[in-house]
Amino acid sequence: MKVGVIGAGQLGQMLALAGIPLGLQFRFFDRSADTPGGRVAPVVTGGFDDRARLAQFAADLDVITFDWENVSAEALQTLENKARVYPSPAVLATSQDRLLEKLMFQELGIPTPAFAAVDGRDDLARAATNIGIPGVLKTRRMGYDGKGQCVISEAGQLERAWEQLGGQPLIYEAFVSFSREVSIIGARNPQGEIASYPLCSNTHLDGILRYTTAPFTHRPLQQQAQRYLRRILRRFEYVGLLTIEFFVVRGRLLANEIAPRVHNSGHWTIEGAVTSQFENHLRAILGWPLGETGVRGHCAMINFIGSMPDALQLMGEAGVHYHDYGKEPRPKRKLGHCTLVEKTAAGRDVRLRKLLK
Amino acid sequence: MKVGVIGAGQLGQMLALAGIPLGLQFRFFDRSADTPGGRVAPVVTGGFDDRARLAQFAADLDVITFDWENVSAEALQTLENKARVYPSPAVLATSQDRLLEKLMFQELGIPTPAFAAVDGRDDLARAATNIGIPGVLKTRRMGYDGKGQCVISEAGQLERAWEQLGGQPLIYEAFVSFSREVSIIGARNPQGEIASYPLCSNTHLDGILRYTTAPFTHRPLQQQAQRYLRRILRRFEYVGLLTIEFFVVRGRLLANEIAPRVHNSGHWTIEGAVTSQFENHLRAILGWPLGETGVRGHCAMINFIGSMPDALQLMGEAGVHYHDYGKEPRPKRKLGHCTLVEKTAAGRDVRLRKLLK
Repeated sequence: MKVGVIGAGQLGQMLALAGIPLGLQFRFFDRSADTPGGRVAPVVTGGFDDRARLAQFAADLDVITFDWENVSAEALQTLENKARVYPSPAVLATSQDRLLEKLMFQELGIPTPAFAAVDGRDDLARAATNIGIPGVLKTRRMGYDGKGQCVISEAGQLERAWEQLGGQPLIYEAFVSFSREVSIIGARNPQGEIASYPLCSNTHLDGILRYTTAPFTHRPLQQQAQRYLRRILRRFEYVGLLTIEFFVVRGRLLANEIAPRVHNSGHWTIEGAVTSQFENHLRAILGWPLGETGVRGHCAMINFIGSMPDALQLMGEAGVHYHDYGKEPRPKRKLGHCTLVEKTAAGRDVRLRKLLK
Repeated sequence: MKVGVIGAGQLGQMLALAGIPLGLQFRFFDRSADTPGGRVAPVVTGGFDDRARLAQFAADLDVITFDWENVSAEALQTLENKARVYPSPAVLATSQDRLLEKLMFQELGIPTPAFAAVDGRDDLARAATNIGIPGVLKTRRMGYDGKGQCVISEAGQLERAWEQLGGQPLIYEAFVSFSREVSIIGARNPQGEIASYPLCSNTHLDGILRYTTAPFTHRPLQQQAQRYLRRILRRFEYVGLLTIEFFVVRGRLLANEIAPRVHNSGHWTIEGAVTSQFENHLRAILGWPLGETGVRGHCAMINFIGSMPDALQLMGEAGVHYHDYGKEPRPKRKLGHCTLVEKTAAGRDVRLRKLLK
């Protein structure tokens, strides 16, 4: 079976590394061949809206998927007559637009922070009044890792935020003072089988995921997150792996966003779960039975951002799983990660704190 | 770091799959590019004794290793001025010759079945008298998966065995009626650090490994195997991963052979140990700290020989890890394997028996 992946970043590479042992062949599409994915499979290069190049890429593939959201949903749609495309471009379009995404949560009865569409200065003033300050002004499209966002902590900052982001569709959201951020990752195959992982607890630094611990053991929240996950998966007759990020506010989950793909907060599943998120995404899009999602212990995943640590020192630590994506160092760039799997949550936390120093 | 692997079979592929996450780059050398290794990294093609092609392959590599033993140790030696070559060609030469191998065991005080060199009909008659019948006549070189062997169960079969194998250096060994075959796998880095895995219990069919279970929990045998492993690793100042196969005879270990490489009986370490044999081989030859070798449970690995099973049915079994090497089916050919990791040995054995049906 031949799998095409649009986007050849580290997520694409990890998909291929999970799929090659299953006998799958991979081909990537990206703007450059000098990518993590390009180190394990051929890359067709082109712009993400270049329909002619995308069509060349799609020739003789059995299924097409993507490793990031900022690919054109319309261009992706044109490939649906060449191969199965999972997750569906319709879901991708929803996830690409923060307003459509929030409206989808609302429709499915999944609580979110208060929000309002902002298409002009007046909308912004109205939203700030109705929803209140502090708030966050965000672009509806093309935001990731904290890009395209302005936090408003007093009324005087509204004008500067508008100057910075105005002129494109925006959304104003209540600033949520959350006790933690968690995510749930689950997969659905075309037969309707669903498998989900335990909640992950995520800690960000400057808008970028710094570390994740899992499982975040909290029975009511786990059950609530699974219910929300199922609603979304069923609503779209979703095929593939989906991530939902939530804020935990006074013991309640408020949905922040979805990612219709494998997710950074699920990297721990490579060593920490029976079946990794990458293998389960592939199983789902191929229509195979989903793999067991049980955990092998209490896991922590630390991202390496901007620079890599001393690899030999880190590999000298018992049981540390080291991942180097082979990317050129650059500020705020995710270059690698490491994962720990410990017998107890307390033991994991002690080692995590030591490694974070 | 660039790692060259001579031999691009499934072992080479699994080495690359373990090394790419560590940021390593791979290049293979094999007679054909249409190999499991060729699906993850470039292959330089040529005969295993083609020194000119091997020299091209070796250009700008940091370290060279191999995934099977039937490469010319002399040709390998010529590469030592281009890159580090681990395990050393000297060890490879010993492992390639059943007589040298047995003499090495003898020198290190490691018990073996009785044996004698056979270079002519007279030697064979003498060996059969001194050692006794039943016995096994084997070629000293180039044997694997039961090839190049004749079992002698009565004196009348000596002549036919000679006709079949005579004319090349041979060895006659006592036929050992063993209760089981076990193997130990361990690694040593250039700093002298040694890490070893628990004993594996191996069951063969027609001379080919059919399945392995691990850990084979038997404290005295484990300690004895580790002592023998250390003797060999130190004797050669060995660098890389080494496997020793033993017969268990009346509660004692009798060494059968060594393999200076990653080994089929260690495939369970991918999912069943904290660090896989593949990663530890790479760590060793790169001079990195060795990874933890603790187990994640009670493991079973089943080889797929000659034909592949129904993949979807197998993947529908909870926790079964499926591996398809992408090779053309052929009788007696290893095409893939699967691994189970269970909480108890009894639970593992029940599932193993079911899967073997």
